[in-house]
Parts: sequence; structure tokens; C-alpha cells
Amino acid sequence: MARTAGSHSDITGPRIEAAALRLIARHGFAAVSMRQIAAEVGVQAGALYNYIPDKQTLLARLMIGHMEDLLEAAQTLQGGDPLARLEEFVRFHIDQNRERGDAVFVAYMELRSLTDENFARVEALRRAYEARLEDVLVAGVEAGAFKITDVRITARALIAMLNGVNTWFRESGPRRLDEVQDIYWDMARGAVGGG
Amino acid sequence: MARTAGSHSDITGPRIEAAALRLIARHGFAAVSMRQIAAEVGVQAGALYNYIPDKQTLLARLMIGHMEDLLEAAQTLQGGDPLARLEEFVRFHIDQNRERGDAVFVAYMELRSLTDENFARVEALRRAYEARLEDVLVAGVEAGAFKITDVRITARALIAMLNGVNTWFRESGPRRLDEVQDIYWDMARGAVGGG
Repeated sequence: MARTAGSHSDITGPRIEAAALRLIARHGFAAVSMRQIAAEVGVQAGALYNYIPDKQTLLARLMIGHMEDLLEAAQTLQGGDPLARLEEFVRFHIDQNRERGDAVFVAYMELRSLTDENFARVEALRRAYEARLEDVLVAGVEAGAFKITDVRITARALIAMLNGVNTWFRESGPRRLDEVQDIYWDMARGAVGGG
Repeated sequence: MARTAGSHSDITGPRIEAAALRLIARHGFAAVSMRQIAAEVGVQAGALYNYIPDKQTLLARLMIGHMEDLLEAAQTLQGGDPLARLEEFVRFHIDQNRERGDAVFVAYMELRSLTDENFARVEALRRAYEARLEDVLVAGVEAGAFKITDVRITARALIAMLNGVNTWFRESGPRRLDEVQDIYWDMARGAVGGG
């Protein structure tokens, strides 16, 4: 056999996921059919079902994959004092979001479409990512560098603020991304009382 | 005639809009049909077409109506010094979002589904609302109370941060809404260098 089922999946899987992400971000999960996804990839619907049993499983795989990729990328964060760690997180998060625009949009929009079980899995990964930022905030409070009333709420507020960049930033706009990152870093530092 | 076409529309219109908003927030615009909306209201599909010509017009009416309601509500903002005005805006925006959860969600999610013409109308209203906050920020900079590099970006960042409350706040949670507003006000003040 020139092509095993395994190697077939290895090739087709990422193409299916990319097509599904594109279509769901454009039309919403409920409006996209397995047939449409197959057509976008250029395979028969049957080939899709060889790869994944149903649309819910595909959505869960996309959303879990997104959070796992983000958590893996966050392994590269270097550390340092709390202020340096917060700055690094702010720039990292904006960079990551720019690279994964559709995945970020779907990650927030389609929580409504997950089964309870899949929602719980995505939510646990999201909490793990938020905890990365919460650790930085706690370290800053302990060092007397930050003034924060509620670490969990503050982490969520900062992430929501940073996520907003994707809704308006355009490469063709008046500011370069690194200038935007400077502005958000100033705001984030001020928001946590970091001087 | 006991019921004119006018009074019929007056009664049915808000019910149709409420049903459409609920369904679109749950399933996404592309997945919801006029027939489903009619069934949710408890009328025939024909009755819906008496009220509104098509689904795109209905979506535009929902999104434009939301922004117009928000702008009208913002007329009640009292003023005062820049710090007091910013605090008032922060609490106002969170209150408004809590009252209009589905409308806020649809307002961000379904920009993708608007025709260019309707997008431009919604975008103009959104800009007018952002300008309310930008005026406060400019006043604060001029008074030497705020330190801001880019007023437009700062306004968008603050609004994104405040919008985040809707994604996690629950009445049954550990914090009351007014405590959450206190926390966001502290963060917003810090983010603009307001001490």
C-alpha cells in the first residue's frame, strides 16, 4: 500500500481543519455542513467521515487544538520580574491572536455550540491559559509591584482588552503592530497599578 | 377596522425583533430562517414578510437599533471632570451590556453577515459611540489628568475590556455587579494614567 489510512489522515486532517475553521468563522457552526467542508477541501463527504465522526467532534477538535497550541506557545515565555513577565505576556498574546484570527473568533463565538462535555474540556484549557497570566499578577502583588483587587477578574479583563486588537487592527492602518503593542502594554501596566 | 396595519406592526415588530435576536444569538444569522423566526413568534411566515422584507433587513434593524438605543441611553451621562466622566462611562457601559447581552453578542459576531451598505451604517453608529468615550479621554489629556498615546486605540481597548464582563459574569457568582464595576473602574483609571 502506497498510502495507509494513517498517512492519509495525516495529510487530510490539517486541510479539513483549516477549511472547517474558515467556513465556521465566516458563516457560524450551525450553518456549515460536513458536505460544505468536504467541498471546500475538495474531497467527497465520505472521506471526511473517515477522518472525523461528526461536526461536533470537529468543532471540539478545532477549539481544543487552538487552546493547546496557545498553551504550547506560552511555554516559550521567559520569565523575569513581574513587570517584565507582564510585558512579555501582553506582546505574546497580541502576536498569537494576530496569527490565529479565525481560531480566536471561533473560540469565543462557538462556545454556545459545544456539548456540555466538550465545553468543559475547552473551559479547562482556557482556565489553564488564564492561570499563566494570573501567576504573573500574583507574583507582582507579592512583590509589591502591582495593586490588584481580584486576580482572576483582572486576568480576564486584560485578556479581553488584548483580544480587542483583532477586531480593528489592519496591517494597512496608521499604526504598526509593535506600536499597538507598546500602547496596550502601557495600558496593561497602568491597569494593574504597575506605575 | 379594529386593527390597522400600523397598529399590527407596532405590536408584532418588537416581538419579531426579540425572537430574531434570541435565535441569532443562539445559532448565528446564517443558520436561522425567516420560517424559524415566525414559528418562535407564533405567526405565519407571511406575517413576517408583512413586517420586514428579508432577513438581511431584519439583522440590520437589530444591529442599528442596538446602537441607537445605546447612543440614546448615553444622552443621560451627566458630565463633570474627566475622571468623573470616565467613571460614569465605565459603570454605564457595563450596566448597558448586562441589559442587552444578546444584542451585544450579535453586534460583534454578525458584522460579517451585513451587506457593505448596512455595515457602513452600523460602523458609523459604533464610531459615534466610541466618540463619546474619546471626548472624555481628550478632555482628560487636556486637563493633564490622563496620559494617553492614542485616544482612538485607548477608547477601543477600554470598550473591549468592559465588553469582556458579559463573557464571564453571572448573578450567582462570588461578586456583585457593583463590585465588578469598582474593579473595572480601577483598571480603566490606571490604564489611562489617571492615578
